[in-house]
Amino acid sequence: MITRTDIEVAADRTGDRVRVTPVLALGPDLVLKLELAQHTGSFKPRGAFNRILAAGTGDGGVIAASGGNHGLAVAYAARALGRPAEVFLPETSSPVKVARLRGYGATVRLVGRHYAEALAASEARAAETGALVVHAYDQPEVQAGQGTLARELDRQVSDVDTVLVAVGGGGLIAGVATWYAGRARIVAVEPERIPTLASALTAGRPVDVEVSGVALDSLGARRISADSLAVCQHAGVRSVLVSDDDIVAARRALWNEARIAAEHGGAAALAALWSGAYRPEPGERVAVVVCGGNTDPSDLA
Amino acid sequence: MITRTDIEVAADRTGDRVRVTPVLALGPDLVLKLELAQHTGSFKPRGAFNRILAAGTGDGGVIAASGGNHGLAVAYAARALGRPAEVFLPETSSPVKVARLRGYGATVRLVGRHYAEALAASEARAAETGALVVHAYDQPEVQAGQGTLARELDRQVSDVDTVLVAVGGGGLIAGVATWYAGRARIVAVEPERIPTLASALTAGRPVDVEVSGVALDSLGARRISADSLAVCQHAGVRSVLVSDDDIVAARRALWNEARIAAEHGGAAALAALWSGAYRPEPGERVAVVVCGGNTDPSDLA
Repeated sequence: MITRTDIEVAADRTGDRVRVTPVLALGPDLVLKLELAQHTGSFKPRGAFNRILAAGTGDGGVIAASGGNHGLAVAYAARALGRPAEVFLPETSSPVKVARLRGYGATVRLVGRHYAEALAASEARAAETGALVVHAYDQPEVQAGQGTLARELDRQVSDVDTVLVAVGGGGLIAGVATWYAGRARIVAVEPERIPTLASALTAGRPVDVEVSGVALDSLGARRISADSLAVCQHAGVRSVLVSDDDIVAARRALWNEARIAAEHGGAAALAALWSGAYRPEPGERVAVVVCGGNTDPSDLA
Repeated sequence: MITRTDIEVAADRTGDRVRVTPVLALGPDLVLKLELAQHTGSFKPRGAFNRILAAGTGDGGVIAASGGNHGLAVAYAARALGRPAEVFLPETSSPVKVARLRGYGATVRLVGRHYAEALAASEARAAETGALVVHAYDQPEVQAGQGTLARELDRQVSDVDTVLVAVGGGGLIAGVATWYAGRARIVAVEPERIPTLASALTAGRPVDVEVSGVALDSLGARRISADSLAVCQHAGVRSVLVSDDDIVAARRALWNEARIAAEHGGAAALAALWSGAYRPEPGERVAVVVCGGNTDPSDLA
């Protein structure tokens, strides 16, 4: 399990390679952390930079398996640090994702029909080449890097009672819960159709879950990181579930109310508030992380 | 001409009825003021609230002529203050605009084939009913209200050398130039196809111009406010023009680089920077106002 010190170190290490993303108050007791304005459109570069920089100053290659936000972040961070990146995806990946990754300078490897095959191929390749593997959520340097979001939010809004965060594989929640442990309530929000953390909290250990729904592309991990689960148990993180309809409505509301074009996963945390899945007390000061904006905004017209 | 004191008064008067909109640093010397996150998606509520509140605490009606950002802002502000709003538009206005205005509770009056006819009808109606006219840019309370954006930016980023602002009828530039007069360089950015201020500066007085192009819906005033021209002359505002292609490219870059979905007029100020129409010195700290996001984001996909 990571510590607050790991997050401080990550913040020093990553420095201005990641953006300070803005906060927007929507009322006296509600603040949005607009992390969709981060490089590559999600919080993921925080962890990717920290993982790569923690490994040293060499110029060897880095490897990731992801056609989503994590892959983009690794490609971006590798290019910024002058290191080659290989990103593994299933052969079934959309040309749009492949083009985006190539746009950030990555070499794209299309392997297998499913993510698990691409991941296995990436690990075999790393063993062969010695390239640095950057996992999407299950490495301490990645989790500590994601935690810099919480440290930054804490400096921007000092008197938060509660932070709502969406959960996929658990990298961001591990960082946020570690940072705020004992000082703010952390609410972990998952789609009903991707209950990775909720299932693990019930079972007392990480379990595989079936995943589907509108937020699959960003929150669709099948199994929570064991370390992330331990952090959540230790910090008393509260788990809530939201429906896909709630997520769609929250995403629409972000656009209508503040011209924020979030991805569905990026709107999930707000969905907990607006659906009533999480009901703050009167006067409770809530921060909601809008964690990504890699979306096709056409349906917001 | 308005004064800094008018802007201070406007800030006190409008208070938390308008949002503090976020700033986003894109580098050590470039900050964006994300005013598209304001209520109704543009800076216009700042002036609308100030105009209505300055007129007193009555519950009489308010009137505006605009199918664009100004109309939305007046409708929004009137509803928030418990006052009925009538908004006049040409009969040729799109059903989308009419629906938006009705969504904010306004009574929509469709009159004539052109904006000038709708404006004349709104003035006749105001004379008849005694309703309060809220002009889109040519009233001191409106200009002072828009100036609160500059006061807010000044508090958020204290050491700005230069502020880039798009110009339509001149309400926002009057407020910004008044606030920063003598303390920062103000660059007024207009589309080549809507050179309202540039033509007036050349002529030494407001002149009618032909208007067209991608930013017509938000910056398409035909004639600059005489007061705004006077402020710009007095404050030594620098005028630059940008092409429609530059605006389209800047709007695209805002989305690609930071997931900001601006309207074309909202991207015009940034277009001056990225096209080279305005070239800062090394180390010059520049703030760019992204003034609106009432856009169909479909083409950003």
